[in-house]
Amino acid sequence: MRTVDIIQKKRDAQPLTTEEIDFIIEGYTSGAIPDYQLSAWAMAVYFNGMTAKETADLTMAMARSGDQADLSSIPGIKVDKHSTGGVGDTTTLILAPLVAAAGVPVAKMSGRGLGHTGGTIDKLESIEGFQVELTKQQFLRQVQEIGVAVIGQSGNMTPADKKLYGLRDVTATVESIPLIASSIMSKKLASGADAIVLDVKTGNGAFMKSLDDSIKLAQAMVEIGEQVGRETIAVITNMEEPLGEAIGNALEVREAIETLQGKGPADLTELCLVLGAHMVQLGGKAASYEQARAIVSELLHDGSALAKLKQLIGAQGGDAGITEHPELLATAAYQVPVLAEEEGTVSQIDAEALGVTAMLLGAGRATKDDPIDLAVGIVLRKKVGDTAQAGETIAELHMNNNEPMFTEDITQRTRSAFTFVQGEVAKPTLIYAIVTKQGITKL
Amino acid sequence: MRTVDIIQKKRDAQPLTTEEIDFIIEGYTSGAIPDYQLSAWAMAVYFNGMTAKETADLTMAMARSGDQADLSSIPGIKVDKHSTGGVGDTTTLILAPLVAAAGVPVAKMSGRGLGHTGGTIDKLESIEGFQVELTKQQFLRQVQEIGVAVIGQSGNMTPADKKLYGLRDVTATVESIPLIASSIMSKKLASGADAIVLDVKTGNGAFMKSLDDSIKLAQAMVEIGEQVGRETIAVITNMEEPLGEAIGNALEVREAIETLQGKGPADLTELCLVLGAHMVQLGGKAASYEQARAIVSELLHDGSALAKLKQLIGAQGGDAGITEHPELLATAAYQVPVLAEEEGTVSQIDAEALGVTAMLLGAGRATKDDPIDLAVGIVLRKKVGDTAQAGETIAELHMNNNEPMFTEDITQRTRSAFTFVQGEVAKPTLIYAIVTKQGITKL
Repeated sequence: MRTVDIIQKKRDAQPLTTEEIDFIIEGYTSGAIPDYQLSAWAMAVYFNGMTAKETADLTMAMARSGDQADLSSIPGIKVDKHSTGGVGDTTTLILAPLVAAAGVPVAKMSGRGLGHTGGTIDKLESIEGFQVELTKQQFLRQVQEIGVAVIGQSGNMTPADKKLYGLRDVTATVESIPLIASSIMSKKLASGADAIVLDVKTGNGAFMKSLDDSIKLAQAMVEIGEQVGRETIAVITNMEEPLGEAIGNALEVREAIETLQGKGPADLTELCLVLGAHMVQLGGKAASYEQARAIVSELLHDGSALAKLKQLIGAQGGDAGITEHPELLATAAYQVPVLAEEEGTVSQIDAEALGVTAMLLGAGRATKDDPIDLAVGIVLRKKVGDTAQAGETIAELHMNNNEPMFTEDITQRTRSAFTFVQGEVAKPTLIYAIVTKQGITKL
Repeated sequence: MRTVDIIQKKRDAQPLTTEEIDFIIEGYTSGAIPDYQLSAWAMAVYFNGMTAKETADLTMAMARSGDQADLSSIPGIKVDKHSTGGVGDTTTLILAPLVAAAGVPVAKMSGRGLGHTGGTIDKLESIEGFQVELTKQQFLRQVQEIGVAVIGQSGNMTPADKKLYGLRDVTATVESIPLIASSIMSKKLASGADAIVLDVKTGNGAFMKSLDDSIKLAQAMVEIGEQVGRETIAVITNMEEPLGEAIGNALEVREAIETLQGKGPADLTELCLVLGAHMVQLGGKAASYEQARAIVSELLHDGSALAKLKQLIGAQGGDAGITEHPELLATAAYQVPVLAEEEGTVSQIDAEALGVTAMLLGAGRATKDDPIDLAVGIVLRKKVGDTAQAGETIAELHMNNNEPMFTEDITQRTRSAFTFVQGEVAKPTLIYAIVTKQGITKL
């Protein structure tokens, strides 16, 4: 088998065999196939696409390219969740204990933040003492005992995906649905998921700007799940504004606790109930979506999910007291309000711009080795559909540096992320569609 | 300017600016832009093509990437000729003296053979004493004095093209008309040509298998010539069989001399008259193609062109006596006839297979540092349209190794290159079309 022939085959729009895809991915992972052949191949995929079978083969090849978690010692259906990236997305912190409280085992491996997006592992580290590194045995035992564990990705998982993603980023081959879908799904498969719930963000602040593209991506991932025997459901959700109100690590942990106390922002609460219900249903703990929804709603409101979070934090060495006293979390030295300059109604909030601003504040990393400040961030006081009077607070900056020029820059950036109009603006739709193997349900 | 943005622009079918193309080619030549970005870009070009202006910009950028010949000290219009590759293509050895005899200065830089194709420089080295390396001053002075010089490419010409071609070869991006056209034309521009005559081979033994594709390539090159102000004419010629009868270095020199003596194979003679007439016309030595054709026909038949070859060989230190006594050229130790197994008419001769066989005999190189045997090769005794009786000689092998298994292998390969049918086969068309800036003339 010669790489150049496989590139040519894809260039000429012929589907590749399982063996050809394995050859490409194994060769690339080992270094036998150079970057310059993979990038030409990726561009050919960009133009000619991949069949469902090819996409599934690529996903499996990448999942197999490194370490794979073996969760077979944990009884039950392990359901994982993935979001296609967003800003202020605190769902994992809420869903892990919520779903675990319903009896679905949660053996979750999460990442750190980069650029304008945050990462669950950084957020958990804002809880004093919380250990994000467990041995494999500790991790499995904890899930067996309390039904939930959340750790950082360790070892060498999906190295093919990491290498290919880095290459696509500099060769204009990111925007290919089969390549995006296989990248996401390969990580879920390597993490040992039996079933997967996907939160596909759509709109201005998301990777997928249009609903059509988001649905296509969701369909591709659901199809991969179908091909590889892991039931997958995708929820297409709004990213025309950040989810919830908090952006920043400790701020988001606090927001998660408030949500589990039944006092969270409406959009974040609703999304967690929807995603959680799908996870509980896929986990076999409810006969229907409606039943699953009733279960997670009950667990959120009766304190069971919060108790599970407390148990999770305790098990991983963290200060579990913060679940009752979130004010004990790290706080920034300065709270600076951002004021509306004139009266208007918020029509859009640029989530990516706010993500970048939070990064500049210190909440995120520009490059992967940058240190971060867990206490800082932004809290939104107005969201799309809300009206602000001139001088009213639209957001609150949590800062550890109040140097005037810096404060002015961050204030300006935050204010510019808001678009105001005159007159009424409808509250945005939170969930646009559900994609399952049975088809698309537009909401 | 960022390379990834330029790749994306081409991927999205937007034409690139002159500055963007310069940025890509300069960056690639210097090593600032890596192979993996260029290969993705080349694949995007494969899919989306290039406008005439982009193709001309790419040609100029590659021509400028290294040394450029300055022929301005030679009076007159310097007309260069290029063939898109073939087997047994002896035209340069005939055309250089023929056109020079008509008063068109010929300052020719040629290459060596690789794989199944031969190279003019190797052929000239089969003439004892012939120096293929001259200093720049010697080269220019010789053209000024006798109107013709043929040397090997020296220095660092079109390094961007060399590097890009090597990359395209392993990334399935060779078959792109703008990339092929700019590769060929960049070398002609760097060689200092004022006008260019192209011999675009078409058919089974050629790079371009179909007439349509050959015409498209010819049009792209003529258009580049138009854009950069170097008049260019392309002749689309048959490559369903090798040109002439000889394949191999000394054998082809002998054939060239015979052709200049008026005793050459009909197809080779006719093609040289056609290409030569176009060169003489572009060189401003005739008012019409018909007049130019009459001039070169006269020069071929009255011995003037042969006398010019003698002068060329003498000027470059070679044994000029071979123009009268070609039998003094190196000859192989063994002449082995290849016999027809049964009666039939030749319908096709696989030029590429014969080129490979000649290479295996020692006439060519598998890799660029292999030594070659100047005396060996193949002489065809039957061509398309000829009938052979069982046991009649169809080709003659000139060998310096008559080890039985080797001889048997070479004999088998040579015989397999011939396709025989029963009944009559028309002599193939030699010239299919002429492409100029005025349009296509199909013949």
